[in-house]
Amino acid sequence: MKLSHRVSGLKASSTIAVMNRAKELARQGVDVLSFAAGEPDFDTPQRIKQGAIDALLAGQTKYMATMGDPDTRKAIAEKATRENGIPGVTADHVGISAGGKHALYVIYQCLFDAPEAGVAPGEMVLPVPAWVSYAPLAELAGAKVIEVPTTVETSFKVNPEQLRAAINPRTRVVMLNSPSNPCGTMYSEQELRELAAVIAQAAKTLAPDIVVISDEIYEKITYGGIPHFSIGSIPEIAERVITVNGLSKAYAMTGWRIGYTTTSGAWGLRFMKAMATMQGQMTTNITAFVYPAIGVALRECADEVEVMRKAFARRAELIYSLSLKIPGLKAAQPTGAFYLFPDVSAHFGKSGPDGKKIASALDFCESLLASQRVACVPGEDFGGCGKKHIRMSFACSEKQIEQGMARLSEFVASLK
Amino acid sequence: MKLSHRVSGLKASSTIAVMNRAKELARQGVDVLSFAAGEPDFDTPQRIKQGAIDALLAGQTKYMATMGDPDTRKAIAEKATRENGIPGVTADHVGISAGGKHALYVIYQCLFDAPEAGVAPGEMVLPVPAWVSYAPLAELAGAKVIEVPTTVETSFKVNPEQLRAAINPRTRVVMLNSPSNPCGTMYSEQELRELAAVIAQAAKTLAPDIVVISDEIYEKITYGGIPHFSIGSIPEIAERVITVNGLSKAYAMTGWRIGYTTTSGAWGLRFMKAMATMQGQMTTNITAFVYPAIGVALRECADEVEVMRKAFARRAELIYSLSLKIPGLKAAQPTGAFYLFPDVSAHFGKSGPDGKKIASALDFCESLLASQRVACVPGEDFGGCGKKHIRMSFACSEKQIEQGMARLSEFVASLK
Repeated sequence: MKLSHRVSGLKASSTIAVMNRAKELARQGVDVLSFAAGEPDFDTPQRIKQGAIDALLAGQTKYMATMGDPDTRKAIAEKATRENGIPGVTADHVGISAGGKHALYVIYQCLFDAPEAGVAPGEMVLPVPAWVSYAPLAELAGAKVIEVPTTVETSFKVNPEQLRAAINPRTRVVMLNSPSNPCGTMYSEQELRELAAVIAQAAKTLAPDIVVISDEIYEKITYGGIPHFSIGSIPEIAERVITVNGLSKAYAMTGWRIGYTTTSGAWGLRFMKAMATMQGQMTTNITAFVYPAIGVALRECADEVEVMRKAFARRAELIYSLSLKIPGLKAAQPTGAFYLFPDVSAHFGKSGPDGKKIASALDFCESLLASQRVACVPGEDFGGCGKKHIRMSFACSEKQIEQGMARLSEFVASLK
Repeated sequence: MKLSHRVSGLKASSTIAVMNRAKELARQGVDVLSFAAGEPDFDTPQRIKQGAIDALLAGQTKYMATMGDPDTRKAIAEKATRENGIPGVTADHVGISAGGKHALYVIYQCLFDAPEAGVAPGEMVLPVPAWVSYAPLAELAGAKVIEVPTTVETSFKVNPEQLRAAINPRTRVVMLNSPSNPCGTMYSEQELRELAAVIAQAAKTLAPDIVVISDEIYEKITYGGIPHFSIGSIPEIAERVITVNGLSKAYAMTGWRIGYTTTSGAWGLRFMKAMATMQGQMTTNITAFVYPAIGVALRECADEVEVMRKAFARRAELIYSLSLKIPGLKAAQPTGAFYLFPDVSAHFGKSGPDGKKIASALDFCESLLASQRVACVPGEDFGGCGKKHIRMSFACSEKQIEQGMARLSEFVASLK
């Protein structure tokens, strides 16, 4: 029996192969140091857990409104107003989905049309390297993804000229992600204002339907002196900015699956209704007794977030300083999220300890895992110059960072 | 800024309008008796809650495998083998989604292709009246839905001749739902064997890609003397049956969002991998600490289920016997799920207490709500003869059933 083209065409991520091998080695008792995880190593703060437990015990086990209960949506709207300065966000501008990825899936389905004969597909401008799922999720909805390449030299940031050149009448979405996974870098307020000016201009002229999707899931994990800034706070384009966020990274809640979307103004309201319709046909509400935990997190847990942020700050400094001592590694200094994303292409063409040629980031990661039991994610799937990079998550102890970087150093020294 | 055609084209359910009005009246303090809810009125059994709480406190708050952890998938595979007699179900044939609806969404996306110029769309044969979401979910994936009408006289069951006539080379899916929402009726083993024979024959000849999706979410709520039977247990077609189930109805866990899918044999394994790929791009795992509660429910909670089943059995008998005394109501005796689905068209053409003409099930429900504060779901959205029916959920107390039916009786007597 046939499967649909859409699922047959979905490539399994090449990064998964390395991660599966690392897990298999760990299961066999091999002492693998993993830098592959895209999630904090902390447990969820206790008072957030208690919020869910209280609701569960009180019987909040029934269907709820698709986009969340009014009080939780209000807590998110207040957070978006207070912390992000996004204008015109009410509870009705907020939607809660089963994780940031789910929010993005629903958003793309609401913006892009399925391919149609004779009609050029809507385009999404995507600075790369970028998180592995933006492109396939948008493509599932019918988008054509226009990659805009960035480099380590500019901290992987797209500039106004590049953005302007990528926009045309078919552009529907500009996808931004600051702090960035996998790059570990951030846009400054000034840089985002310059990009916003390009978008505002394009909206007035050649791309009236353009919207920005700003993925700010790593917003709380910043330590490089660049304050997080929400492009949706700029009044000139606020109504056409869809901001995606969630509790996964800031509150160590990846497994809970809580993402949220905020919009602004009259169009934002219309868009949120469309999201509710779409999500209502897909999953409806998230786990009912989890909603109250969201309010607890956003209203009461600044201290817990700060403890984790400081830990990530120390680790960022440690891993970056150690990376500088390893020959042939070229990394941008991490300023947000928890990733170091070094260019390792200086070693391409050499041979690993087992004699195998290293011709790619994937080869590099496989050889590193086999010889030094260190698991990193090869950058191929992130697009653009990613294929010259590896992603090292430092959501792990400082001790592991020291040991891992020592092994990586030994590995590099062993290349011929 | 434009929205996609797919979301603009999604009709809001007409049933929602009535339900929203009922909620609004209840909020205003009006004593509304609601027969609209599609969920048990019981709370989730305590030991299931405890399973989730224990996992949450133990730190099961991280990403998990997209389709669920091996132990939980094994618990479901064992259940499918033990209780449903489905052959060849291993843990790898099982996938866990965020509710039965989500499972169906993913399944349709894996089976149907987006419309393509010059290519006839894949078809789904759907006996109607049927649950409101089957058709739009399948259509979102690109399916053409072929409705097969049934009537109250045959307890809303499709017969082999009807099924045979509906199948052609474009048929990809036959959608079954027993016990049925909204009909409250069930297929017998013999009836399903006859349908299976038609499908097996079609698979050999004109429709080699045909699969059955069997939604058995109400399997535990039966009381009419017809034992629940899984069409996936018939070896001749087992490999082409995708069985959808979940914890929502049997364990009073609608708000938890736990659905699961079981498949069989080599193709089932291939299909489950496709589902994992698709779901991995959409939501990944469900709330992580909820998985252990699934094992608790399936392995330990037969007694709690039996208590609820017996309550539904008493209510079914009560509401059905009361409905027989109301002139112009024609209902099939409920044998499963928790719905009475009476034909009320004998009253079409009359006028309600407010003088408004009743020309449809929607009019009937609106007038009933306005004059007697009883909320039912009009059957228009269920398809086929549904437009002559109203759905009364009896997931409520016997006292409410008595009061509600008295009011309904009064309402019917007041029609002119």
